[in-house]
Amino acid sequence: MLPRPSGLVTLLTDFGTRDPYVGILKGALLRASTKVQVVDLCHEVPPQDVANGAFQAWTAIGRFPSGTVHLVVVDPGVGTARRLLAVAAHDAYWLGPDNGVFAAVLASDQTAEVRAIDVEHLHLAPESRTFHGRDLLAPVAAWLAGGRYGFSALGPRVTDPVVGIDPLAAPPRVLHRDGYGNLITNVGGEYLEGAVAVMVAGRRVPVAGTYGEVASGELLALVGSFGLLEIAQNAGDAAASLGVGIGAPIELVFA
Amino acid sequence: MLPRPSGLVTLLTDFGTRDPYVGILKGALLRASTKVQVVDLCHEVPPQDVANGAFQAWTAIGRFPSGTVHLVVVDPGVGTARRLLAVAAHDAYWLGPDNGVFAAVLASDQTAEVRAIDVEHLHLAPESRTFHGRDLLAPVAAWLAGGRYGFSALGPRVTDPVVGIDPLAAPPRVLHRDGYGNLITNVGGEYLEGAVAVMVAGRRVPVAGTYGEVASGELLALVGSFGLLEIAQNAGDAAASLGVGIGAPIELVFA
Amino acid sequence: MLPRPSGLVTLLTDFGTRDPYVGILKGALLRASTKVQVVDLCHEVPPQDVANGAFQAWTAIGRFPSGTVHLVVVDPGVGTARRLLAVAAHDAYWLGPDNGVFAAVLASDQTAEVRAIDVEHLHLAPESRTFHGRDLLAPVAAWLAGGRYGFSALGPRVTDPVVGIDPLAAPPRVLHRDGYGNLITNVGGEYLEGAVAVMVAGRRVPVAGTYGEVASGELLALVGSFGLLEIAQNAGDAAASLGVGIGAPIELVFA
Repeated sequence: MLPRPSGLVTLLTDFGTRDPYVGILKGALLRASTKVQVVDLCHEVPPQDVANGAFQAWTAIGRFPSGTVHLVVVDPGVGTARRLLAVAAHDAYWLGPDNGVFAAVLASDQTAEVRAIDVEHLHLAPESRTFHGRDLLAPVAAWLAGGRYGFSALGPRVTDPVVGIDPLAAPPRVLHRDGYGNLITNVGGEYLEGAVAVMVAGRRVPVAGTYGEVASGELLALVGSFGLLEIAQNAGDAAASLGVGIGAPIELVFA
Repeated sequence: MLPRPSGLVTLLTDFGTRDPYVGILKGALLRASTKVQVVDLCHEVPPQDVANGAFQAWTAIGRFPSGTVHLVVVDPGVGTARRLLAVAAHDAYWLGPDNGVFAAVLASDQTAEVRAIDVEHLHLAPESRTFHGRDLLAPVAAWLAGGRYGFSALGPRVTDPVVGIDPLAAPPRVLHRDGYGNLITNVGGEYLEGAVAVMVAGRRVPVAGTYGEVASGELLALVGSFGLLEIAQNAGDAAASLGVGIGAPIELVFA
Repeated sequence: MLPRPSGLVTLLTDFGTRDPYVGILKGALLRASTKVQVVDLCHEVPPQDVANGAFQAWTAIGRFPSGTVHLVVVDPGVGTARRLLAVAAHDAYWLGPDNGVFAAVLASDQTAEVRAIDVEHLHLAPESRTFHGRDLLAPVAAWLAGGRYGFSALGPRVTDPVVGIDPLAAPPRVLHRDGYGNLITNVGGEYLEGAVAVMVAGRRVPVAGTYGEVASGELLALVGSFGLLEIAQNAGDAAASLGVGIGAPIELVFA
């Protein structure tokens, strides 16, 4: 069952905030439907980093009202023949380029339905060759969120989306370094049961339930707010202390 | 008299904007009430810097519609037994951890009322041990802003909030360095009457009414937009020029 | 014909986001009218860089619903006698200081109407000498967007706005470096017809239609999303690779 659109559109991009691109994207949404409500998920996906975009898109699952439209613009292939996708998954809608940015969203919902946005049928023509987020995806997102078009009207069903690399898949490693310096891994918290420590960068980091269980300045491994294993430092920056970043392998140590 | 909720929630956090945390916090608000309107106050409180959070919370006093709910998430003790507070003060509501982040808000309103949020009574259970802003504070903020619960229903009155350090209290010093390099002090503008200069970092900086009163590149001391004494530089970065930052002592010079 | 206000206000400032200034500006808008909808255009205009502000204001032309109010606060002369302007141009409204920040907006609409905001007549008195965006421009923007005052009621017509430097005017040069490292020039895409390359920093950069037409790591010159010539690098940072920035001269090479 497809959810009823909530009227809400979230934005996940690699635009950063030092330029007017995000504002202009919101203008395109509001020009297409003045009723949509827009929320920024994040605009600091590293430039053209589809894998990080796939992880950050995954973090939105279940976190917004039913029927929210998630617009994801991490689009290194803009201007080439790559398709634009509309995905119905996890009680929400996801729009973005067909480049693997929905790898984790699709891998975690076996009932997901994928359509290729039929730009011509929707009477859309891109004004530019470099900003299809503004020219194509924003109007479609606004129309879907505002109820002008249903999901099924956006284009034909496709069964061959670019699979990409599911950032949540094995092997165990660091997925993301957050602004506090926490190292977020792709290991679900459920795998931590019975583990006493995590090996990372040659260091043995003890498993704990929360920051307060270790002394200030000490490293710890805990289940963070994404439900994933994180390496953190109480009152510190684990990434800086360990000198490691995205991609670093980790290993669980059981008693 | 408690104000009627305005439906508006502001957010003040140390999350930064390079991760999806702020977006997810907004999702939690909107899942609890689709009617709330959310405005970012600031997300660049230095990580876990409760004193800076207390200052920035204070800057919101009187600046939003009556009955606005200010959600403050600077929470180094997350996951420990620290309480969560709801404060009614300055014709507004303030929700956040009981760690002193409301020191300046409370010190400046003798009629403030403080309650400890009764999480269990509100049928809330944290999903994580590291993100109570999302799991607990956001739903409560949305319910309060949207009118589902009144302030008095959030939990029992408490008279012993963590006092913390009121950043506005003496001795005279630099409180905050803003993005222009202005040094904002804890000295109210009213104390500047009769002063001719301010000593800071061994330099004598003349008092002026506005930037245009000194030559380009010159330092000046003036009453800034917070009503506080600021050390600034016309067309320059005072903090960089003086080589001082937060905590630097200052002294007024009278004629 | 003046457009009907859309209820939408966009914000373009040099405030950055590490301080609560943007939040407080939004509070001032919402205190004046709880019905206005606020969208950030950009807050990373370099401090007091009126020319960059003029360029970024220009990028909003035609990108928002008819009757949107664009509030521009890049105001190095705050506290001096400079006027505050209200401009009706490009089917939208523009409010900001009279310092040339509307140079490109005015130069591109010969039917633009300019008024000097009559602060006293509107019963406004600035609370500070350093934040007229909050004290004066925000209430006026909210009143205009919310329909409390029409454009003509804001103050007398003026014919002598500060002209400033139209960033779009010749000679051909780099106007803006965006967050990807693209160098955006002031050369309209229409002038690129017949050109085969662009000279910049002593390098000959070939003209292409889109990123995919050159190999990864190669430089290219293309018409970007603003309709302007941009120097870019496929999967790279052109500004870093070329070692040039704002103001760098460029030259078109025809076959």
